[in-house]
Amino acid sequence: MSSSAGRAIRYTLFGESHGHGIGAVLDGIPAGVEIDEALIRTDLDRRKPGASRLSTKRSEDDAAEILSGMREGRTSGGPLAFLIRNADAHSSDYDPDLPRPSHADLPATLKHGSAVDLRGGGRFSGRLTAPLVAAGAVARQILMRRGISAGGHILSIADVADQAFDLSKGEGPDAALLESFRREYLPLINEGVRGAMETRIERAKNDMDSVGGAVEVAVIGLPAGLGEPPFEGVESALAQWIFAVPAVKALEFGAGTAFARMKGSEANDPIVLRGGKPAPGSNRAGGANGGIANGNPVIFRATIRPTPSIARPQRSVRLSSMAEEEIIVKGRHDPCVVPRALPGLEAAALLSLLDLIVQAEGVAWMR
Amino acid sequence: MSSSAGRAIRYTLFGESHGHGIGAVLDGIPAGVEIDEALIRTDLDRRKPGASRLSTKRSEDDAAEILSGMREGRTSGGPLAFLIRNADAHSSDYDPDLPRPSHADLPATLKHGSAVDLRGGGRFSGRLTAPLVAAGAVARQILMRRGISAGGHILSIADVADQAFDLSKGEGPDAALLESFRREYLPLINEGVRGAMETRIERAKNDMDSVGGAVEVAVIGLPAGLGEPPFEGVESALAQWIFAVPAVKALEFGAGTAFARMKGSEANDPIVLRGGKPAPGSNRAGGANGGIANGNPVIFRATIRPTPSIARPQRSVRLSSMAEEEIIVKGRHDPCVVPRALPGLEAAALLSLLDLIVQAEGVAWMR
Amino acid sequence: MSSSAGRAIRYTLFGESHGHGIGAVLDGIPAGVEIDEALIRTDLDRRKPGASRLSTKRSEDDAAEILSGMREGRTSGGPLAFLIRNADAHSSDYDPDLPRPSHADLPATLKHGSAVDLRGGGRFSGRLTAPLVAAGAVARQILMRRGISAGGHILSIADVADQAFDLSKGEGPDAALLESFRREYLPLINEGVRGAMETRIERAKNDMDSVGGAVEVAVIGLPAGLGEPPFEGVESALAQWIFAVPAVKALEFGAGTAFARMKGSEANDPIVLRGGKPAPGSNRAGGANGGIANGNPVIFRATIRPTPSIARPQRSVRLSSMAEEEIIVKGRHDPCVVPRALPGLEAAALLSLLDLIVQAEGVAWMR
Amino acid sequence: MSSSAGRAIRYTLFGESHGHGIGAVLDGIPAGVEIDEALIRTDLDRRKPGASRLSTKRSEDDAAEILSGMREGRTSGGPLAFLIRNADAHSSDYDPDLPRPSHADLPATLKHGSAVDLRGGGRFSGRLTAPLVAAGAVARQILMRRGISAGGHILSIADVADQAFDLSKGEGPDAALLESFRREYLPLINEGVRGAMETRIERAKNDMDSVGGAVEVAVIGLPAGLGEPPFEGVESALAQWIFAVPAVKALEFGAGTAFARMKGSEANDPIVLRGGKPAPGSNRAGGANGGIANGNPVIFRATIRPTPSIARPQRSVRLSSMAEEEIIVKGRHDPCVVPRALPGLEAAALLSLLDLIVQAEGVAWMR
Repeated sequence: MSSSAGRAIRYTLFGESHGHGIGAVLDGIPAGVEIDEALIRTDLDRRKPGASRLSTKRSEDDAAEILSGMREGRTSGGPLAFLIRNADAHSSDYDPDLPRPSHADLPATLKHGSAVDLRGGGRFSGRLTAPLVAAGAVARQILMRRGISAGGHILSIADVADQAFDLSKGEGPDAALLESFRREYLPLINEGVRGAMETRIERAKNDMDSVGGAVEVAVIGLPAGLGEPPFEGVESALAQWIFAVPAVKALEFGAGTAFARMKGSEANDPIVLRGGKPAPGSNRAGGANGGIANGNPVIFRATIRPTPSIARPQRSVRLSSMAEEEIIVKGRHDPCVVPRALPGLEAAALLSLLDLIVQAEGVAWMR
Repeated sequence: MSSSAGRAIRYTLFGESHGHGIGAVLDGIPAGVEIDEALIRTDLDRRKPGASRLSTKRSEDDAAEILSGMREGRTSGGPLAFLIRNADAHSSDYDPDLPRPSHADLPATLKHGSAVDLRGGGRFSGRLTAPLVAAGAVARQILMRRGISAGGHILSIADVADQAFDLSKGEGPDAALLESFRREYLPLINEGVRGAMETRIERAKNDMDSVGGAVEVAVIGLPAGLGEPPFEGVESALAQWIFAVPAVKALEFGAGTAFARMKGSEANDPIVLRGGKPAPGSNRAGGANGGIANGNPVIFRATIRPTPSIARPQRSVRLSSMAEEEIIVKGRHDPCVVPRALPGLEAAALLSLLDLIVQAEGVAWMR
Repeated sequence: MSSSAGRAIRYTLFGESHGHGIGAVLDGIPAGVEIDEALIRTDLDRRKPGASRLSTKRSEDDAAEILSGMREGRTSGGPLAFLIRNADAHSSDYDPDLPRPSHADLPATLKHGSAVDLRGGGRFSGRLTAPLVAAGAVARQILMRRGISAGGHILSIADVADQAFDLSKGEGPDAALLESFRREYLPLINEGVRGAMETRIERAKNDMDSVGGAVEVAVIGLPAGLGEPPFEGVESALAQWIFAVPAVKALEFGAGTAFARMKGSEANDPIVLRGGKPAPGSNRAGGANGGIANGNPVIFRATIRPTPSIARPQRSVRLSSMAEEEIIVKGRHDPCVVPRALPGLEAAALLSLLDLIVQAEGVAWMR
Repeated sequence: MSSSAGRAIRYTLFGESHGHGIGAVLDGIPAGVEIDEALIRTDLDRRKPGASRLSTKRSEDDAAEILSGMREGRTSGGPLAFLIRNADAHSSDYDPDLPRPSHADLPATLKHGSAVDLRGGGRFSGRLTAPLVAAGAVARQILMRRGISAGGHILSIADVADQAFDLSKGEGPDAALLESFRREYLPLINEGVRGAMETRIERAKNDMDSVGGAVEVAVIGLPAGLGEPPFEGVESALAQWIFAVPAVKALEFGAGTAFARMKGSEANDPIVLRGGKPAPGSNRAGGANGGIANGNPVIFRATIRPTPSIARPQRSVRLSSMAEEEIIVKGRHDPCVVPRALPGLEAAALLSLLDLIVQAEGVAWMR
């Protein structure tokens, strides 16, 4: 496995859903950086189970203990280690002999053999985004002092769509909008769709089914010139982290898949003067050309597949007997993980972009 | 910048479009592996300019000299270094003071200052996929002996769409189909759209415009269990490489963005017995769950933006005077880079997946 | 900082001496590997404070909790995370304004500013070798099943020297000798020097002084051909880890510094037949040529400087006033850290060599 | 193999002694940095064969072509690629079936099989330090503008010893002395030993033997606080590179192995005020404590084994018949590689320390 990402700021994840605990090590933050632990808690609360009646009933307190790297509200120069103890685990819900369709159960068993710990999804559980959110909350505080903010909204759930960010302008959303997103379980640009979206999730639950969706995230305030292409270009660096968040199956920058149907004359962002500086006058590129940030917001969309755990009968194979068998996935499952994936995606974006900044600028600016 | 990718098999790219040469170092291949240099040439020929009347007229021979790592048709145990000399460069076509919209010109100048070499696109040029294709041809030969093949087709150009791979079956395309793709400039599943697609590209050329499109790539024969999640999971590992290919703006696995509108009961791939082994009976996941290959083909789609170089007037800013100015991009440009991007994307996929195999299995199997 | 080492087997260290806890994440071990936690405890006990009357009186239980990656005595496929809580910390002994000579205090303060946590040596404390020993104990168990053992003895303390390994033979020490070393606080080849060595340490203590020394470690059973030169050659890979162990100031392989005075005809190891296979008939090279293991034991010596903490008056500078001031280092200190460094050096060797094996062979052999 | 080192500044080596060419890629230098190619040539000339009558007669021009990354005397922002063509190769001198004692021949053949290219030492040849010196010359120019210089002298050849750097002072050697070293094939502090040293080398040649020795290198002007411990601490980072230089078998910092015989009261460097700042008043530590530069020069010693190639009969084993056989190594060999290793060691030091600076500070300062 490969549990680390980042080159200058290095994040290492550990833990399984039903083991003793989950956590992460965040290496590369210099000493003397003020970190408000309450804000880490705030971010963790956004993704914790039970944050909404639309979510799973598994109740985990999900408080992250900071084992090292902090002293009296400031970083100490050593790596920050986060630990979240596991508590409310109903392991008996899981039968390792009967893999759940579209979960990691089958490929993980083929890879690791029967010793792999898949209780509660093991290390493939969405729960593993909690340490990511904790580490991302550290990155968020550091970046915010530089005027860099990240925030996202629910672009769609099934057939209910929010309005998208406006790519016809170069400027993109402002910090206040992004901040307001963080106060909602279902952050939306168009409040008018909230009811329909909630209803759609509840219907999935009542149908013993689940629904997918998409989120759209903007990062504003990034320095033009950021990115280390080709292999640590803005899109490449982000993509490695984004696809590490469970259930993500597509990633688009700016106009994304719509570029395929465009002409160059429609797709190009003209270069204009903005505040006396040259900048793209629209943002179809999503904030980067050639892997380098162009001064516009970085805007990406991630598609989240429907929760594979559904209470309806599905086809599976009992591994011990190699016989096909019907499976009904038990346990408490989110009918829609899109809202809970969003904080993890923001954290992934913040950490990967902080890494790129430190690759270019070092760490002295953080203090 | 970050010119290297891969952990066990490490690819390092160098060169600029109008410098002395471009090339790459491929590290990690053990000694004694037979490599047919003629097949490297075959792959390079697919992406070279002038391979089709639909392409740019820049004529580069694009033969890769292997400087090291080979001896008498076998690898020697040292890194393979490829060198492609630059020849047909018309540097006078480029004015570094007037950045071309939607190229890397503006962000690269903001990053690097005026010393950056952007002649012919510098290191952001699509030409830099030539060493990738050369290295990918090495990976292709090695993987083919294990029964692993990669091939892709043009999924769409503007509004002309080919048929997609059939995700309702687990098996996916066969090696013969993938091989046949490699003989065409515009590989297609549905031959019936060839004429319309060619016409669409020619029309863009005549309109002094360009068009975008999408490609769809399948990799078959991968061992179930491949992938090192979270950060070197199949999707994460591929994504870092794929987004390093110029002009890629979206990446989807399996059903991709369509997952957003699905219910779990529609999106899940049932587990069935195939050839006596458990395997997903359909392939909406695109070959991986939880970042681990599930035994089905890995199928991804990449969206390629329209060539930003168009002969129509566009808005830009003259950097020395900070005045807005109209720009007409000169030079010989592809009206559609989608066909030429495809070999690079296949190479990126082959190299990243070879890297994952070596991470898990080491190198002894290659000999 | 850079708290991670290894490429295929990745070790990430966290913690400070007087924070909540110290620990490490060990990534890359496949699922299904039996690990005896009692043996981890055994190795930890070797380095813990108070293991001998010759050592510091700080009493830490130093039990490592395995937070993740293990289930019912077998690895689960996820990273192993170790946590050792800090307990017996007397922080009041330390004055951050008056750096202790030859400690990290001064350079760490110049690097990090006053926020750096140097209580008890912070993350520079020898205590940080405890997680290394815990992770090394996992490597040791895995390697032992392949017939690979590591063990070391005290080569010298001040002017009292043990006999060195015999480099005139290719075979080197046997596993029984190496195993016997691990039962002693002062492992020795020549038991006759034990009394003198103990006396020398006690004298240093009584003199309010400290003493340095050297250790010699052998790793036997390594496969010939191991090593990934140039930058992950046997010596390079080991060296990065060995110099990360506090107080190490010199590292020698085989004849080491004695090579400087030799002629080629004296230094060369002839190639002979041993057990029907070609092998070096002596081991002046210390087991590797050109960075590749040659089938002989890898033998290295590390010099450990005297503990900088001595109770005698020394010169320092008060940072707040920039005035020279006499310092008397308080607290409980080892008069000689050589015996306690040895388990850390063995662990470093085991982990770096395991990493090299996995780089070449992958992980399947471990199960 | 692992042909890359460095994290922020990344060096990738390629080539074999008798292949088409050798070279390297140096990634991470920003655009706009002036580099004088003539100074690269000057550094290369120091290590080229035939630079002295004491050296091998193989004559290679060893001019490095810069394939990319430079334009009109400035870096362009892309990786610098160096190519040195091979010319004067007498491959017939080498018999791959009869491994030369203490060369990489035997372990490399055991690792790679018979396909490994060992002609002229293959990629294990000292010749592979030429690209290192070329890349190091780039680092040297960049660092010199910051007041950082590296230089070394021959500490000893066999039993003829130069005077060592004076560790009783904190300041260390000055830039003028280090610069003067670079003008000599045998740079020395004590000119009085030059004759004896030259005679010693010539005697080895006449005796059909070789001699080892040691070099001592100082790096002055480094910022206090440099180093990313534990695993990229000053010593760890340097060590990985230094042991990648062929024939290095020991590495010592400051007092090095002499620490083993010292008391703390002798080994400690007092902290004093120097130029109004706190600094170690002596330099027994060799410039770093806890892996962090303390403001004093970084001083290290490397032991270079005697050239294994000697014209005297030695024992070996013919691999095809597995019979012991006498070998007389033919070809043109240096009786002492110590002087030619020195430029490579300086280059290794410069590159690894530049990497550490960029890890901490980013790249903007270089322009």
